[in-house]
Amino acid sequence: MVAAPDGRVVVSTDLLIEGRHFRRDWSSGYDVGRKAAAQNLADVAAMGATPTSIVVGLGMPPDLSAEWLDALTDGFRDECALVGASVVGGDVTRCDLVVLGVTALGDLGGRAPVTRSGARPGDKVAVAGRLGFAAAGLALLGSGLAPERLPEGSPLLEAVAAHRRPRPPYAMGPAAALLGATAMLDVSDGLVQDVGHVAEASGVRVELDPEAFAVAEPVALAAEELGADPLEWILTGGEDHALAAAFPADAELPEEWRVVGRVVAGQGVVVGGRAVERGGWDHFR
Amino acid sequence: MVAAPDGRVVVSTDLLIEGRHFRRDWSSGYDVGRKAAAQNLADVAAMGATPTSIVVGLGMPPDLSAEWLDALTDGFRDECALVGASVVGGDVTRCDLVVLGVTALGDLGGRAPVTRSGARPGDKVAVAGRLGFAAAGLALLGSGLAPERLPEGSPLLEAVAAHRRPRPPYAMGPAAALLGATAMLDVSDGLVQDVGHVAEASGVRVELDPEAFAVAEPVALAAEELGADPLEWILTGGEDHALAAAFPADAELPEEWRVVGRVVAGQGVVVGGRAVERGGWDHFR
Repeated sequence: MVAAPDGRVVVSTDLLIEGRHFRRDWSSGYDVGRKAAAQNLADVAAMGATPTSIVVGLGMPPDLSAEWLDALTDGFRDECALVGASVVGGDVTRCDLVVLGVTALGDLGGRAPVTRSGARPGDKVAVAGRLGFAAAGLALLGSGLAPERLPEGSPLLEAVAAHRRPRPPYAMGPAAALLGATAMLDVSDGLVQDVGHVAEASGVRVELDPEAFAVAEPVALAAEELGADPLEWILTGGEDHALAAAFPADAELPEEWRVVGRVVAGQGVVVGGRAVERGGWDHFR
Repeated sequence: MVAAPDGRVVVSTDLLIEGRHFRRDWSSGYDVGRKAAAQNLADVAAMGATPTSIVVGLGMPPDLSAEWLDALTDGFRDECALVGASVVGGDVTRCDLVVLGVTALGDLGGRAPVTRSGARPGDKVAVAGRLGFAAAGLALLGSGLAPERLPEGSPLLEAVAAHRRPRPPYAMGPAAALLGATAMLDVSDGLVQDVGHVAEASGVRVELDPEAFAVAEPVALAAEELGADPLEWILTGGEDHALAAAFPADAELPEEWRVVGRVVAGQGVVVGGRAVERGGWDHFR
């Protein structure tokens, strides 16, 4: 039983499948627990709510080690603790793969929920949290990089860690609601694709300014290492669970928010003046 | 966003894996949706709450037909409609198997939640809903029976249908809370095993009287057909999602409840005077 003092509860659910959303050779059980919790907690925060609890359905092969399972549980607990939430229930079943069904609940504390459909022409678009980190880390791991051979303190390790454990800016969600956010979501599939959902739900066009993004050192270094374009990771990389929101033009945003675009009449997403085709950024390049 | 007028919300989650919890050649998409919803809605009802909403995480192979998917969705909707709940969110991802992560929420309407841990010596144990039907249906399907060759109106069809779509006595859950139920759960794994959870959580012994159970016609006929023991299905068959509860000895129970045992000091489950070993009924026989 979960307290729902507001009298309303927001809910987010996700299914994570081994091999698709995580690999046990790239991520520990603890990492998987942290990440699985984080993506649902971030989704709850993106509605302007404070996460209160998580329930977990776990499908597991019979040979999964007790250590891995304990670490997974610890990961869930520790990520929930960041926001004052807890794991309140679960279900375990046999499965050939590790499968996690995660559902997070949140409380609105009297605030109106922020949806994807409230962005209006004239709004500014801003982002809180990291972009491109997890994509850079995934690319590094995919290139065959052995993180344990990197020197301690290498910025590349920060990118790899970001793939394993996102760090969503949870507190920015309810704060954005109080700042008057008209639409919000967490960036799970890539900024361009995700603000496309806001554009569609709100019946507006979102214009992003590629010059507005900072390229953080781990992302820049990883791009240099792999001969990749850091802006592509920033614009299309998922799983960092940054928050992207539209705010009224006169909203005074704290420094955690970086304005990266604006809402205009029309439809779809425009990056640097060029429309992104249906099908996403990949097709656009 | 879900209304939680009580200010508390109860949550139930389950993971259903193709091949383990359902087979696409034995159950339609519609059946799977009905059953997946039912088992979580029943769990919510067993806490004395009224189900309000469901969220569904769906893992699906790329070749899953649109018809199957539509039927699944219809099944979820129709089962939820039985209790006035609705599907409020979801997540879809690729997976080699069909995997369903289902979470149901419920509202207590001011009642105290009924847990598994409140049964006290002197309580009577009662069951509402069907027992043994789904197990009989599963056994019939497993025997190679082709339901479409049975004559219309055959009671065996009712057993097969019970395997595909349980019919939990949802309304009996909140009603039991009002009648003073001290512990309750829905029978998902088999009555003996599930009341064992109540015995353990409550620190009591549950005595079941094998003479107290009615053997319904579909169960009796299926047992005759397959040379099986109907009482074994009734005592150990899961998935009918009957409600089993402990009530104070002086509680006046409506006819939907059948008294099948009592709570005494001690531990474990006793059937007809014989203790059920740890490991369950199968080991006992």
